[in-house]
Amino acid sequence: MRTYLDCIPCFVRQALEAARMVSADAAIHERVLREVLRWSSEMDMSQPPPAMGQRIHRLIRALTGVNDPYRPARERQNRMAGDLLAEFQAEIAAASDPLEMAVRLAIAGNVIDMGVHGDVKKSAVRSSLRQAMREPLAGDLQEFRRASRKARVILYLADNAGEIVFDRLLIEQLGPARVTLAVRGGPVINDATRADARAAGLPGSLEIVDNGSDAPGTLLPDCSDEFRRRFAAADMVVAKGQGNYETLSRERRGIHFLFKAKCPMIAEHAGVALGAHVLLCPQAGGG
Amino acid sequence: MRTYLDCIPCFVRQALEAARMVSADAAIHERVLREVLRWSSEMDMSQPPPAMGQRIHRLIRALTGVNDPYRPARERQNRMAGDLLAEFQAEIAAASDPLEMAVRLAIAGNVIDMGVHGDVKKSAVRSSLRQAMREPLAGDLQEFRRASRKARVILYLADNAGEIVFDRLLIEQLGPARVTLAVRGGPVINDATRADARAAGLPGSLEIVDNGSDAPGTLLPDCSDEFRRRFAAADMVVAKGQGNYETLSRERRGIHFLFKAKCPMIAEHAGVALGAHVLLCPQAGGG
Repeated sequence: MRTYLDCIPCFVRQALEAARMVSADAAIHERVLREVLRWSSEMDMSQPPPAMGQRIHRLIRALTGVNDPYRPARERQNRMAGDLLAEFQAEIAAASDPLEMAVRLAIAGNVIDMGVHGDVKKSAVRSSLRQAMREPLAGDLQEFRRASRKARVILYLADNAGEIVFDRLLIEQLGPARVTLAVRGGPVINDATRADARAAGLPGSLEIVDNGSDAPGTLLPDCSDEFRRRFAAADMVVAKGQGNYETLSRERRGIHFLFKAKCPMIAEHAGVALGAHVLLCPQAGGG
Repeated sequence: MRTYLDCIPCFVRQALEAARMVSADAAIHERVLREVLRWSSEMDMSQPPPAMGQRIHRLIRALTGVNDPYRPARERQNRMAGDLLAEFQAEIAAASDPLEMAVRLAIAGNVIDMGVHGDVKKSAVRSSLRQAMREPLAGDLQEFRRASRKARVILYLADNAGEIVFDRLLIEQLGPARVTLAVRGGPVINDATRADARAAGLPGSLEIVDNGSDAPGTLLPDCSDEFRRRFAAADMVVAKGQGNYETLSRERRGIHFLFKAKCPMIAEHAGVALGAHVLLCPQAGGG
């Protein structure tokens, strides 16, 4: 997905919010804002939006000297999601279709996102999860089921901390032995890293890799050779979250995208309603 | 009032919205957006925000070749306000304190603003006016009454089209013979011009001047000598709307500001709640 004109005011607002969240120094806020304005004025709009997110957060880290400013937020989100885990594990155990329930909860977990609306509360996450158990799912669950049954190697691209606890529920349904979980190669916003994967209490047998990139998405040219090899070789790629959709929607290989459409431009691009819980299967993806 | 960092994302968003309202050409939208980003990246933050508004709307007019793109919107707003006039004239006639009622309605008319939230509907204006008749007024009405009784020459700075119909109600209370109404020197957004003053059915005896500037506010250095002379010589200056407050809040001379605080930064600067109906008297102004 390319960058739309509507993405730009949102970059500018998010850059200011992020600078303020990370630093109390007004000179740093102004510096970040002015740089992002200058970059945006010259931006290559064919790039996906997370390319700008990567630049913004690199700048904030460089100016503040803080390598991982969102670590406390991620740890809080992991704990919050961990507190909800047993409740929703029981729902899956009791469900007539545990895979469907796990897909729904993994998508709903995508409400834990600091990129769009700042931080999120446990009560909001629980109510989002409860709602997701009932509401329509925009996508072809049967296709997802067929593809997941056939696949020997599933590459699962995580999105955010906290959310990764609910990814665990879906990975348990897919069968951890054939799943490789990929996290970001370095800290960016609240995107899940290796430390968050460990905090999520994932099965010990699960292989965890990182993509070698600090973009809030999967910018393949910026990822490691090793990651790209796995990406090409996997029978099935499950990509969680808006950032992965934005960066991978134009890829030729089949990808199953699971996300909550929180941004109007992404919803429009994916052809779904704003706020929809989306499962995009390969034939419906692309573009 | 200087420009705050928070004003910048709002400029960028408003510039894109305005370009889209005026032109269907995506190349123009992108050009406007990129120019505004570049200007903002180098902006002198000591300037009041309407200085950027002036540049943005000059650019849109230059790129589209349309000298007054908001004229249909202003004419619609004048008609809409005109439809409501008799109803609220009757309220003033029946009020125990007609001046207070006219002040309240003039402030409430400031809801007709395209700068902040796009266009506005008649039902919203009526309900804003009805609400303004009851709700607390943030300001010292008695000081306004005293100053207006004493003044021989009152300069009344209009803000928007449509709104100017409700300014008429207050001008009728102040006494048209000693009031000079000032409008913008050229079209910018839906700010009131001479044509809008005529459309408002103002008393024939009322003197109307323009300020010689196409800024959406009163940037004194950009105004005509004649206007600045009148500004200095008036016994009382009544300034309507956020744009006039933003551009004149640092002036030394006493000014009575009447506006609805629709922007969080302006509300903070004026020390009032967001959404408040504000009457700022000279001793409370400045800064």
